[in-house]
Amino acid sequence: MEKYEHHVKQWLKENRARAARLLQLLVRENSTRGNESSTQAIVIEKCRQLGLTLDIWEIGGDELKSHPAYCCDRQSFDGNPNLVAVLKGDGGGKSIILNGHIDVVPVGDESNWDYEPFSGVVECGKLYGRGSTDMKGGNVALLMAMEAIIATGIKLKGDVIFQSVIEEESGGAGTLAAVLRGYQADGAIIPEPTNMKMFPKQQGSMWFRITVTGKAAHGGTRYEGVSAIEKSLIVIKSLQQLEKDRNARVTDPLFKKIPIPIPINIGKMMSGEWPSSVPDTAVIEGRMGVSPDESIQSAQMEMEKCLQDLCDQDEWLKRHPLKLEWFGGRWQPGSLETNHPLINELTKRFIEVKGEPPVIEASPWGTDGGILSTVGHTPVVVFGPGITAVAHDANEHIILEDLFAASNIIALTILRWCEVAESS
Amino acid sequence: MEKYEHHVKQWLKENRARAARLLQLLVRENSTRGNESSTQAIVIEKCRQLGLTLDIWEIGGDELKSHPAYCCDRQSFDGNPNLVAVLKGDGGGKSIILNGHIDVVPVGDESNWDYEPFSGVVECGKLYGRGSTDMKGGNVALLMAMEAIIATGIKLKGDVIFQSVIEEESGGAGTLAAVLRGYQADGAIIPEPTNMKMFPKQQGSMWFRITVTGKAAHGGTRYEGVSAIEKSLIVIKSLQQLEKDRNARVTDPLFKKIPIPIPINIGKMMSGEWPSSVPDTAVIEGRMGVSPDESIQSAQMEMEKCLQDLCDQDEWLKRHPLKLEWFGGRWQPGSLETNHPLINELTKRFIEVKGEPPVIEASPWGTDGGILSTVGHTPVVVFGPGITAVAHDANEHIILEDLFAASNIIALTILRWCEVAESS
Repeated sequence: MEKYEHHVKQWLKENRARAARLLQLLVRENSTRGNESSTQAIVIEKCRQLGLTLDIWEIGGDELKSHPAYCCDRQSFDGNPNLVAVLKGDGGGKSIILNGHIDVVPVGDESNWDYEPFSGVVECGKLYGRGSTDMKGGNVALLMAMEAIIATGIKLKGDVIFQSVIEEESGGAGTLAAVLRGYQADGAIIPEPTNMKMFPKQQGSMWFRITVTGKAAHGGTRYEGVSAIEKSLIVIKSLQQLEKDRNARVTDPLFKKIPIPIPINIGKMMSGEWPSSVPDTAVIEGRMGVSPDESIQSAQMEMEKCLQDLCDQDEWLKRHPLKLEWFGGRWQPGSLETNHPLINELTKRFIEVKGEPPVIEASPWGTDGGILSTVGHTPVVVFGPGITAVAHDANEHIILEDLFAASNIIALTILRWCEVAESS
Repeated sequence: MEKYEHHVKQWLKENRARAARLLQLLVRENSTRGNESSTQAIVIEKCRQLGLTLDIWEIGGDELKSHPAYCCDRQSFDGNPNLVAVLKGDGGGKSIILNGHIDVVPVGDESNWDYEPFSGVVECGKLYGRGSTDMKGGNVALLMAMEAIIATGIKLKGDVIFQSVIEEESGGAGTLAAVLRGYQADGAIIPEPTNMKMFPKQQGSMWFRITVTGKAAHGGTRYEGVSAIEKSLIVIKSLQQLEKDRNARVTDPLFKKIPIPIPINIGKMMSGEWPSSVPDTAVIEGRMGVSPDESIQSAQMEMEKCLQDLCDQDEWLKRHPLKLEWFGGRWQPGSLETNHPLINELTKRFIEVKGEPPVIEASPWGTDGGILSTVGHTPVVVFGPGITAVAHDANEHIILEDLFAASNIIALTILRWCEVAESS
């Protein structure tokens, strides 16, 4: 085994520049929702060159769309395929899924970026651009790990199932489609931006929309109306209290260092049409975190009750109830016992490469790990080189050293997990 | 005098149906900003039939636009003229300006209206439609008062200067243009919707925009960002406290019955782009009331100081200061002593017609009275038949009986104020 490990490490060391170039190529393609095809084409070509067995398909169909875990408002997936690329093993070893999403979130206000958002600029060991951290950097770590094994002539016993999926940022329809297509394994690694931490548990989440009704009036006699903005303030206060109460119940040590384990984020608020009129409607949109120990449904019921209680206490809201909708994205929570063999294996390889034990925590956001584990019955660890804090932010970037280390750790883990075949 | 008064009263009584029809005609024309011409054409034709001296002009020019009281973001006034129509007196009496605006605010959400917003439907003595109360009903009261005097053959000593102006709802450029064109008088009545109350003092007002800066982050790690919505909550709280403090200082008995004499209305709030991102910007727009006893400038400085104090107390806002802009509408406050002869005269005629004394208060909103008095040096009373509560709201309407009574009171006041000439 030492021999194989040495070859793989050596190959990865010698091919760092190629890894960075591949990431640059991927970041330079805008793969926001509906625009995934050009980036996916680069990944497909890479997998073809590696000699993997390709499964490329446009997701959709009744089985997917009627599945209870399906959550997607996208009209068409045409032209933006999912990819699964398999490195078939000789048999006898454990199989592993390496899952990464290819879609990225919008760039936001471009004026906040120091470089053009799709530049892929490298400076001081960091590569910049939307998707660099979340999670094209992780995907490159996977691809380089596989290439290292293939290039050094190693044959594995178990299958390595690489998945480049769409739609993670909007609810996981891509991974769900892969699960329903039959892809399962004895373990899975998803290299989301974890700051090199390991997340055996993942926070789930879902989007909500609350509509608040007021009564219009002239601003000069605002006491004749009821301000939807003022009513929104007490709604927001209730949500803040709900967040506090829910987080007080989270005692899992994996969440110990996370300031707010399952946040309720208010992401949007829109109200009013005219500065001197009392606004008669306000719309609040946000994201509710779901603990690995609870279901989507029970979390939804808790928010419904919170808002109902508020309506019961407020004379105006009693007569003009808040409207709560669950719309857009929804991500299943995921949970794996911390002494699972996959965690143990990853931990040993982490120590081998980094010389220190990894931080093991719960993830602060939902990932496709929820679907892979709850629907696909595949044990999942989320572990990757990206930087949590800059995901979805301006000036998103990744530290290339971390990408190389993650690639190394994952490659070594694959060798142990899938086992090296005698034909090597 | 009794004879003249009797004739005028009698004429108005007999011509109530014509007054209602004229109002219906005016309400059926949409005269929102930029669309005033067709309604103004009806008023012009009416004044032509009455034999008044017409002054019709498109406002604009450097003198207007560079005036410190000018506040207008409209690009062009072409095709939507101002009108001044004068009933020249024989000389020796006091002159009076009768001022009404022809522009109306947008209809808002049409689904909240029981009738089509420009229907002019009459039901149970009420006439419905945008502008019925604010303030085409008041304008009809003025026109009918003048027609009663003319039709009964009365000649006056003083001039009656009728003004049908544009742009009141957006800052008073129409009345300012009339003042700068030289129209001044010994007194003025503006029949805004006061519920038949008399307003010798008028609240001024102006629009503000506050931009709040936050820091974006992924909603799942929202503690890594700074929510512009959360920061907005403390801005709104500060504005609410400022409103409280400013209103506590208002001791003028004219404001006694007004719940909030000089409100700060928050009319709009927009923040965020994505439910699961921390919003990095919020924009709050509103209207600040200005007391008749203070200047626009001092009120502005008070809000500036309030926001500066907030920034000084908050570590984040200290480094990311709030941005305050004064934009869009601005209406000068107005003030007339309550024992002014014009108030006394109106009060006597009110008692004569209604059999009870009028309520004398301060107006809850700015009117063109601010410009007429501060720039035009003309003593102004705001008094009219419209309903304060339904101005700018859905289902705006006016009680026709009030329109007839106001017309009567104003006609009798004109006889006393301008005096009847011997040639009558």
